[in-house]
Amino acid sequence: MPADRSGRTGRDGALVLGVDLGGTKVRAAIADSAGDVLAEMTSATDARGGRHVAEQIAVLARSLVRTAGAEPESVVAGAVGTPGVPDEESGTLGLSPNLGGLASVSLRDELSHRLGYPVVLDNDVTAAAVGERCMGSARGCDDFVFIAVGTGIGMGIVSGGRLLRGAHGAAGEIGYLPLGTDPFDPANQHRGALEEAAAGEKVSSRFRGATGTTVSTREVFDLAAQGMPEAVDVVAEHARYLALAISAINAVLDPELVVLGGGVGSRPELLGPVRTSLAELGKDPVEVRTTALGNRASVLGALNLALSAAGLGPNWEDM
Amino acid sequence: MPADRSGRTGRDGALVLGVDLGGTKVRAAIADSAGDVLAEMTSATDARGGRHVAEQIAVLARSLVRTAGAEPESVVAGAVGTPGVPDEESGTLGLSPNLGGLASVSLRDELSHRLGYPVVLDNDVTAAAVGERCMGSARGCDDFVFIAVGTGIGMGIVSGGRLLRGAHGAAGEIGYLPLGTDPFDPANQHRGALEEAAAGEKVSSRFRGATGTTVSTREVFDLAAQGMPEAVDVVAEHARYLALAISAINAVLDPELVVLGGGVGSRPELLGPVRTSLAELGKDPVEVRTTALGNRASVLGALNLALSAAGLGPNWEDM
Repeated sequence: MPADRSGRTGRDGALVLGVDLGGTKVRAAIADSAGDVLAEMTSATDARGGRHVAEQIAVLARSLVRTAGAEPESVVAGAVGTPGVPDEESGTLGLSPNLGGLASVSLRDELSHRLGYPVVLDNDVTAAAVGERCMGSARGCDDFVFIAVGTGIGMGIVSGGRLLRGAHGAAGEIGYLPLGTDPFDPANQHRGALEEAAAGEKVSSRFRGATGTTVSTREVFDLAAQGMPEAVDVVAEHARYLALAISAINAVLDPELVVLGGGVGSRPELLGPVRTSLAELGKDPVEVRTTALGNRASVLGALNLALSAAGLGPNWEDM
Repeated sequence: MPADRSGRTGRDGALVLGVDLGGTKVRAAIADSAGDVLAEMTSATDARGGRHVAEQIAVLARSLVRTAGAEPESVVAGAVGTPGVPDEESGTLGLSPNLGGLASVSLRDELSHRLGYPVVLDNDVTAAAVGERCMGSARGCDDFVFIAVGTGIGMGIVSGGRLLRGAHGAAGEIGYLPLGTDPFDPANQHRGALEEAAAGEKVSSRFRGATGTTVSTREVFDLAAQGMPEAVDVVAEHARYLALAISAINAVLDPELVVLGGGVGSRPELLGPVRTSLAELGKDPVEVRTTALGNRASVLGALNLALSAAGLGPNWEDM
């Protein structure tokens, strides 16, 4: 088999499907065996959930193949990144409150059946970490974490060049770090003490508390970028919680690098304040970077997980 | 080569040396290729430090061989567990304030030269984790942490059956977790925020604060065991800080098991209060056990590191 320009040695013409399935949006892409994206689409997640979502992904996948001008049978494998901890045995999703109905449906089996090729499931933040390692801010880095800050907060861990998943697949559930709010208060234990302080919507609610004005979290960041003092303060407070989390993660894992991503974490306005707070927490703070892939990290990681699952070129863990 | 009763296949008659080198005590043992201890000794660490400590260990090693009635040349490898992060290239120790002079001396080379066989250096808490996995409370467990609570607080991590050391060998330096005291206060940043709250001597000083009486940390635990309410309260407060740390570690690593050891961590009076505080921090708390090896965890782990380094039987990571 010929080696292509990325160093992968793939089947000629073989393609893979990558999907980032969120509670509100589904993003899907088709790539060749070099990992180069041929077509990509985004759509609102079918609110009916369950099998409707599986059908939606199958329709998207076929549409991507047509858009790329490829033969349907050239797609040989797929991977889906999605919130929660996929159950390897059943192919269902646990801990996925935003995707009603999928806890009882084997999304993996539904998709494999509809599409005619194997589809693997993984956590979306884990997929994003893989994306950052293969083609983003953590290229070539064997020990790093990817922290997704958006509606919730989660982390993918690469340690010694491999994914660290934990004994029950729950490694990186850093919303449960006992930081930011009182971890002994049962009111903070459902989402987790840190997530109660550092979930994305807190930016909006803190800004409302400070100014009496209701704007979205995104708008608060826009206002901070424009230099509005109250918005700058709110972003700095959010950064402070993230720095506490990074400090805890650093004490446990000693990573080489921390990559921030997700809807909030990918905001460039966050990086400076996070670094400032980390420096206040001690000397020689760990290096922090913003995602290079933005909201495409999970879908690009899913493509690389699909390539590895299909045995197309080297496993991403050897890259 | 014949397989012995432990399943190892070793050189007939080959022995290894294991050493736990602390700031006040050095404990050394000789074991056969099955890991069975033939002789063990403890001595006060030579206060002059540096090469004197290397000479002291060499004398201990030769004395152990005589005690075991073995030939000096039957010892084929050694391992030393010691505070700090050994530098693999130079064989010196970093971060080892209690062992004056060893930062500039290659303890590894000094010992190998004096003893005539290779000696490897590793962190003492890492060695203790290996000990717990091979013959202690974590036997057969692929995802666990060993937390040493004594003068300081540190952690050894086994993840996916392998030691997790981090990008700079500083994984598990949980004294720096931003918990227990204000992590932004520079006064707490030298030892680390958690260590300022949860180092062993805090038990004694909190008891003094509560009662006006000065007793050792060990005596506070003895009094708690006898049911003295003030001592019980102080132990419970210490357990609360440890539970916060365990909760943070659990959010990051999702281990199957947490083993408590070290001078304070091995006290059986601590386990119940730690479990109680963990239950208050959320449902389904991670399993916590007390060390089965007590203050021998590091020396027994060092023996297993030496066996692995010598290629005697399976690597401990495959056990």
